[in-house]
Amino acid sequence: MIYLDHAAATPVSERVFEAMKPYFSDDFFNPSAAYLPAKKVASDYENAKAIIAHAIGAKANDIVITAGATEANNLALGVVASAFSEARLEFSSTSYTGTRTDSSLRDEPGRSVRNIRVENSNQHLMLQKKQNATNPQILYLVTEHDSVRKVAEQYGGEAIAVDKNGRIVLEDLKAKITDQTMLISVSLANNELGVIQPISEIAAIIRDVRFDRLKRGIKTPLYLHSDASQAMNLLDINVARLGVDLLTLNAAKVYGPKGVGALYVAHGVKLQPLTRGGGQENGLRSGTENVPGVIGFAKAIAEAKEHLNGNRKKYANWRKILLSELRDYELINKKHVLDNFVVLCYNGIDAERLVFLLEEKGIYVSTGAACAASKGVRSHVLAAIGLSDEEIAGSLRLTMGETNTEEQIHEAAKIINEVVAGERERVTS
Amino acid sequence: MIYLDHAAATPVSERVFEAMKPYFSDDFFNPSAAYLPAKKVASDYENAKAIIAHAIGAKANDIVITAGATEANNLALGVVASAFSEARLEFSSTSYTGTRTDSSLRDEPGRSVRNIRVENSNQHLMLQKKQNATNPQILYLVTEHDSVRKVAEQYGGEAIAVDKNGRIVLEDLKAKITDQTMLISVSLANNELGVIQPISEIAAIIRDVRFDRLKRGIKTPLYLHSDASQAMNLLDINVARLGVDLLTLNAAKVYGPKGVGALYVAHGVKLQPLTRGGGQENGLRSGTENVPGVIGFAKAIAEAKEHLNGNRKKYANWRKILLSELRDYELINKKHVLDNFVVLCYNGIDAERLVFLLEEKGIYVSTGAACAASKGVRSHVLAAIGLSDEEIAGSLRLTMGETNTEEQIHEAAKIINEVVAGERERVTS
Repeated sequence: MIYLDHAAATPVSERVFEAMKPYFSDDFFNPSAAYLPAKKVASDYENAKAIIAHAIGAKANDIVITAGATEANNLALGVVASAFSEARLEFSSTSYTGTRTDSSLRDEPGRSVRNIRVENSNQHLMLQKKQNATNPQILYLVTEHDSVRKVAEQYGGEAIAVDKNGRIVLEDLKAKITDQTMLISVSLANNELGVIQPISEIAAIIRDVRFDRLKRGIKTPLYLHSDASQAMNLLDINVARLGVDLLTLNAAKVYGPKGVGALYVAHGVKLQPLTRGGGQENGLRSGTENVPGVIGFAKAIAEAKEHLNGNRKKYANWRKILLSELRDYELINKKHVLDNFVVLCYNGIDAERLVFLLEEKGIYVSTGAACAASKGVRSHVLAAIGLSDEEIAGSLRLTMGETNTEEQIHEAAKIINEVVAGERERVTS
Repeated sequence: MIYLDHAAATPVSERVFEAMKPYFSDDFFNPSAAYLPAKKVASDYENAKAIIAHAIGAKANDIVITAGATEANNLALGVVASAFSEARLEFSSTSYTGTRTDSSLRDEPGRSVRNIRVENSNQHLMLQKKQNATNPQILYLVTEHDSVRKVAEQYGGEAIAVDKNGRIVLEDLKAKITDQTMLISVSLANNELGVIQPISEIAAIIRDVRFDRLKRGIKTPLYLHSDASQAMNLLDINVARLGVDLLTLNAAKVYGPKGVGALYVAHGVKLQPLTRGGGQENGLRSGTENVPGVIGFAKAIAEAKEHLNGNRKKYANWRKILLSELRDYELINKKHVLDNFVVLCYNGIDAERLVFLLEEKGIYVSTGAACAASKGVRSHVLAAIGLSDEEIAGSLRLTMGETNTEEQIHEAAKIINEVVAGERERVTS
């Protein structure tokens, strides 16, 4: 088997597994319990959080452990909900029976309701306001994963354009920021193309906007969120250098366990929890801690940081090998990419058939984000960089990783060429 | 070590661990990927869901996998949010700048707003309405875990009383149901006392209310949710027999892995997802599946069902042993309890000291729910059944489980007696 779909899933590394193992059946105690073995587990858990935090230049207390990147993204984007729970709606206090429309709420012509604050403590509403298309609160890169897009759409968001290389068009970002914009979400590296975004440049733009708002007395905050799930393997992530307020991490993409992620939350950012209960994670994410998962996450992240430089060289080299040994392709992700991502277009060929034929030869690749592929939905990422439907249909994503060797890369190139050549012949005959 | 805190945490059983193991590093593929090894993982995952579902008399499609019981409870109680997204608020469509209070929303005297539906598709609000104290939407047993209580409080809820044995007062439930009540949440077995609630009797009451609403043309639905986290080890759970619309399960309490839970959702119940994204779990809970976790969960649940009868006899016997060999205590949880729960009051003694002293002798017990204990909060459950502050301070919870043997039970009784006698002497001298 030559596995070239590391962006979809990575195996738990042996060292990560060994690190997790004791916490399933031996050190299984509830971290909140009073006795020493439990306190030791709680301490190991906190140490693990510290390791995760330090890997990105943060402190343990800045990290909220979640059940994965999707939950972390949902939690992050919910920052706009906080602002809208400041909504005023005054009621009379007479009792009410049944369901009916109240036309007294009709707005006066010329005025529209945006932010309303709750007045009456007996009856009040928590409003999550979905915005009209002209004044979005969340700006997100058009190529973001569904776990950002779908949530942004829920709250009212607008997409920022990318160029044909998949890089953010900073002028479009600047043009789209309004006084109502609260959050800008741009993944550090895209999960389909591996394109790396200029996060610190975006942060600089945001700083200017904040300063301008301050001058004009506009109190709306403006936060920068970045999903760094794919980037952790090859990039040195530092939240101060990036300038982010919120950052998503995913254990499952860095040879850690599935079902564990984290959200870095900068000081001063007010989030509303998605889950309430026992108050874990500083009240931001209740639920008994997934101790083995977090121990594994810390080990995985520490290893990723350790192997960063070696990985960069290794994948840069392997990418060169692939691009020189592969035939008859058009390279889609040319610039500013994570070197382990190789996205190729085989024009006139059905890439889904290639996936199937390559699988028969023991090579596992994909046509894009796993979630989208399984739903038969055309990649919105490839569409956003201007590929035609036919080009999208012929696009293959190869993502190299720890399971690969250089021999495998050579072998993969050889077999991919054979399969593609076979398909060319078949479709042209 | 004699571990008597199984309600706080259980070790992953050996068979569960062996079942999970292959899915960390060997069958690690993303279930949504297109190639066969991934499809096999997806199939194994679905089989696991089927096993979990069948264990409670449901189908795989009725189960939403979550990251634990807390998330499942939050998701379940969010059913009331669905109803309130049907809220009408009409706006003008003029644009808006800045933040201000709009007094045009003031209600006319004598009328108050309860349910409002969104009209304008460009601008609409998702309303989660917090109710006034006279018309609650969620009724929850006063002894519920924080992951129900805190969420219910958020939406607007009212507590149902329990008697001195911790059993629901059905008359109080009937008295508190109004036309606005949408959800009743009562744990099948309480996590501090092990008290088993008459869920099917509650379901019968609910059926009557639903029929009555139908006759009067009231469209508000009424759902029954039950957290069965603690009950799975000793009770045969069948959703039809219980009459529940929503049921929470927790792998971590049945010798499965932490960080995995499930919510059973009956047909017709409309939930809003807490996390959006790739659309997994029928869109109700997005995020790449925690495959090892769910495989482990299924194994754990299958084992629990297998050992049900044996367990019941075993714990009934051990409970008898404890109650006859222990000295100088008052039994708190007398009737309708899971036999592995023994809650004792040592009046005049500080139970937290007992926990510490017992720990020194290698016996691990607790004073109540782990989450509460770690926050130094007095047990709301013991308060609800009428214990005084002093009695609460002297209360110990012993929860037996798979790690115990009969010898350990005898040994524990002996040591507890010694430690208690020592404390009695110390406080009276």
